Amino acid sequence: MLQAEKRKIYREAGADALFLEADHLRRYFTGFYSTDGYVVLTDEKCLFFADPRYFEAAEKALKGSDVTVVAGAYKEAIEAVKDCKTLGVPFPLVTLSSAEALREKGFMLVDCMPALKNAMEVKTERELSLIQKACDIAEDALLLLLPELKEGMTENETAALLEYNMRKLGASGVSFDTIVAFGANSSVPHHETGETKLKFGDIVLIDFGCKVEGYCSDCTRTFLFGDDGKHEQFKKAYEEVLKAHELVKETVKAGMTGREADEVARGSLRKAGLDGYFTHSLGHGIGLMIHEFPTLSPRGEEVLQDGMVFSDEPGVYLAGKYGIRIEDSCFMKGGKVCTFMHKTDRKLIIL
Amino acid sequence: MLQAEKRKIYREAGADALFLEADHLRRYFTGFYSTDGYVVLTDEKCLFFADPRYFEAAEKALKGSDVTVVAGAYKEAIEAVKDCKTLGVPFPLVTLSSAEALREKGFMLVDCMPALKNAMEVKTERELSLIQKACDIAEDALLLLLPELKEGMTENETAALLEYNMRKLGASGVSFDTIVAFGANSSVPHHETGETKLKFGDIVLIDFGCKVEGYCSDCTRTFLFGDDGKHEQFKKAYEEVLKAHELVKETVKAGMTGREADEVARGSLRKAGLDGYFTHSLGHGIGLMIHEFPTLSPRGEEVLQDGMVFSDEPGVYLAGKYGIRIEDSCFMKGGKVCTFMHKTDRKLIIL
Repeated sequence: MLQAEKRKIYREAGADALFLEADHLRRYFTGFYSTDGYVVLTDEKCLFFADPRYFEAAEKALKGSDVTVVAGAYKEAIEAVKDCKTLGVPFPLVTLSSAEALREKGFMLVDCMPALKNAMEVKTERELSLIQKACDIAEDALLLLLPELKEGMTENETAALLEYNMRKLGASGVSFDTIVAFGANSSVPHHETGETKLKFGDIVLIDFGCKVEGYCSDCTRTFLFGDDGKHEQFKKAYEEVLKAHELVKETVKAGMTGREADEVARGSLRKAGLDGYFTHSLGHGIGLMIHEFPTLSPRGEEVLQDGMVFSDEPGVYLAGKYGIRIEDSCFMKGGKVCTFMHKTDRKLIIL
Repeated sequence: MLQAEKRKIYREAGADALFLEADHLRRYFTGFYSTDGYVVLTDEKCLFFADPRYFEAAEKALKGSDVTVVAGAYKEAIEAVKDCKTLGVPFPLVTLSSAEALREKGFMLVDCMPALKNAMEVKTERELSLIQKACDIAEDALLLLLPELKEGMTENETAALLEYNMRKLGASGVSFDTIVAFGANSSVPHHETGETKLKFGDIVLIDFGCKVEGYCSDCTRTFLFGDDGKHEQFKKAYEEVLKAHELVKETVKAGMTGREADEVARGSLRKAGLDGYFTHSLGHGIGLMIHEFPTLSPRGEEVLQDGMVFSDEPGVYLAGKYGIRIEDSCFMKGGKVCTFMHKTDRKLIIL
């Protein structure tokens, strides 16, 4: 997005400039990765204040762009907005101490999160292509992992190998701590990957993703590691989760709210008597953060539109027994839901 | 630390209870890992509000502890403090929107960060042993990596292999995005690991760490990948950085400030005419976050004391030429600086 377009973000909130310090927002406005620094967007300029750890690299990377790299940190960033009365900051992404420091300097703060959210949740072609790359890498990494799964391997070893594959295929890192859950551990939706060993007949739930130039992928697949004939209930539930997952792709359209999208999956599971075990939301936005907007949940009032990226991840969890989640990263195009994931099967795989 | 001891954190700030929502603070107070939830510490109880993704696992993990797991989220956490007038929250670790929501409900907020910082920066024996484990794993992983380095390997492949080794040795993940810098890339202190290929004679700078039960390690080593005879200036500078690094371990004592510790290294490099190239701080606290307190920098006014954990990481960076950083995770014991790192050499290794 051009900086001109981005100026709407503070103008709509009635501010004279945008003052940003969150990591992923610096990246959104400059394209440059750093763990520290400030971005100031005024009517005249987009300034990135980089300390000596980043200055050299930032200058090189942003040469010729519409971002001006300035050697400095907080003091210099404040100096750049000294003629502003009102600063736009995203209230949910700024700390109370930072906000109070700005207010003590005499700035009025207004929340630019609504406009920022609106801008960030609709992705550009470049952003979509980076997310596509992160999804391709994740799926390829999973395909490389599957033949390596062996009895006795721990959840940690499995996660290690999958993450290695993603890294080796070009990801800069994981988009969140990889979840690998064997057997009954799968019934904990956010199981902490541990030292449980893989056994014949186990359910294997893997929730994983990686980053490419900061942009995230998010995918979950649930398998059986051999069929011990004891999983009839699981298999029936799997078919219902898959049905809910596919129904979202087929019937959710631009113009529907996140709540309506969630209800497509929840309603489908309700018919099967499984909605009581679908204990989380259908999905979340994906971008530079693994959890962004829109929210596809019973409380999601945002209207879905072209360019939005979100997960489609219904699941059911029977405490102490089993869990199932089938998740694709998806995007809206031409009013319809499209998946980024074309390489791995969503049908139940028995390894 | 016992919850009784932790109650000082809000009492010292004059609050009736502590209200926490940051990930690593939930872990600090409960020991349990989650990406969502609330911790409320009152005079009577320590409550952890867990949503359905975590409730089952949290109940199991915290059975018999002094933490009560409650099914719920924000609404339930607010209900638990309804009789409180003043809530303690750490201002630098709470968002402006969360803070304003609490104020709108009629709560007075006071900053408990000073007391929280004081508590968190002095580690318990358990915390020290987890950091020791994270350091052991990181060093073992590096030792496994070194024989695998080959001409033509990319920075990304190198990082992938190192991270795989750490994961396989039992780490739950990295403590930050691994920095691998080949050749002149080393002159960017926070180089973004990329597709640069390793060549004979290259400098190799690796800054890496992993997590064990949430606790971080942090280590940097700088090598030569073969000696092409063109690195005399680099070798001299390396000796000076090593001297500064070791001088910190030998002469920094409990009772000194972070500023004085920083000056030990900076003064040593000044004598060699290299202080102008030491463009960052000497070190930072390490714990559940990779950057904690104390701060060892020209502005570090905290007094170092037993139980504190921090990095000792002097470095020099000559833009476009070379960079050197030698970093150990260290702790203060019996008034002296002790290193967690006993497995890898700090002397210049020529691979």
